[in-house]
Amino acid sequence: MQSRLERQIAFILEIDKLKHIFRQSRLIGSERFENDAEHTWHLTIMAVLLAEHAESAQLDMLTVLKMLLIHDLVEIDAGDTFAYDDKGLEDKYEREQAAAIRLFGMLPDDQGDEFHRLWEQFEERQTDEAKFAAAIDRLQPVLFNYENKGQSWREHGITSDRVLARNAQIAEGSTELWRYVERLIEQAVKQGFFNEKGE
Amino acid sequence: MQSRLERQIAFILEIDKLKHIFRQSRLIGSERFENDAEHTWHLTIMAVLLAEHAESAQLDMLTVLKMLLIHDLVEIDAGDTFAYDDKGLEDKYEREQAAAIRLFGMLPDDQGDEFHRLWEQFEERQTDEAKFAAAIDRLQPVLFNYENKGQSWREHGITSDRVLARNAQIAEGSTELWRYVERLIEQAVKQGFFNEKGE
Repeated sequence: MQSRLERQIAFILEIDKLKHIFRQSRLIGSERFENDAEHTWHLTIMAVLLAEHAESAQLDMLTVLKMLLIHDLVEIDAGDTFAYDDKGLEDKYEREQAAAIRLFGMLPDDQGDEFHRLWEQFEERQTDEAKFAAAIDRLQPVLFNYENKGQSWREHGITSDRVLARNAQIAEGSTELWRYVERLIEQAVKQGFFNEKGE
Repeated sequence: MQSRLERQIAFILEIDKLKHIFRQSRLIGSERFENDAEHTWHLTIMAVLLAEHAESAQLDMLTVLKMLLIHDLVEIDAGDTFAYDDKGLEDKYEREQAAAIRLFGMLPDDQGDEFHRLWEQFEERQTDEAKFAAAIDRLQPVLFNYENKGQSWREHGITSDRVLARNAQIAEGSTELWRYVERLIEQAVKQGFFNEKGE
């Protein structure tokens, strides 16, 4: 019989694997792809800094941070699904739900339940905290792609229309950040960062 | 004149560099060294999970998390100083103070001041939040080294006495976690994970 601490430590060691899950975005000015763990760190510090721009002035920041900290853990089993991979997105929820059950099931029940609920809250995007956390999760790759002159958009033939459509939900979390993203994409178009034929 | 949002975004892009600062520990079961950004993510989720073992039952977890999120940023300029590098540790504070002034100075004044104070609070280790955050920062590499059969201890000729001395401060943040670490180091000695001659 494992103690609470032993179950917590087993989980802590298991989630080290998040550092081996790579995304489609490269680090700024670098050839190296970003992994989920360092991505998550970046999101949490962004959330702290940008909270003043959130739609809701009453955010529970501890919930926002916990939600972000765990939101990608399911990718340890389910892998990263590229934001514009329509086929991969079809069964994403099922794959990730199975991963959530396995991973969060390693924890003491109360903590596993809390993490599972936080993950579902993030996915459902109904609460103010989830809307803001999801906005930050969408904002970061747009910033990166702009800095890298449209690298992953071009590598995958994503047009500016698709980027605008995919990211419009940022406005649910923050009108101000969405306006910023709209201007950034406009600039990216002007600078030729998109292959607008989608090839 | 930059707006608040522009200053925040400039800082967010700058700190991407934390992902290029590598530590002396390798990921579990891997040849790859851990970088500061993914390390920080791991610490924050550990803090959330292990808070019940903290010496203080009244921790302000938002402060703990913010402190951890920013505690290694100064290494963007100052580099990682290995925990057992006595020479490097001599001028560590001066190098890191200069880095803090430059980096946190990029932010709007109120946020830059808050981050600078959080960083100093972490370094001074006087508050309950700082003691617990620092305990988590010490615990993680011990867990990793144990899993990797003493890899960085052996690579640097660190004896078990030095590991015990260096990490005894974990007890300030959590007696229970310190007891766990003592048992782990005892196990590591039995399993021959140290070169006790310090070579």
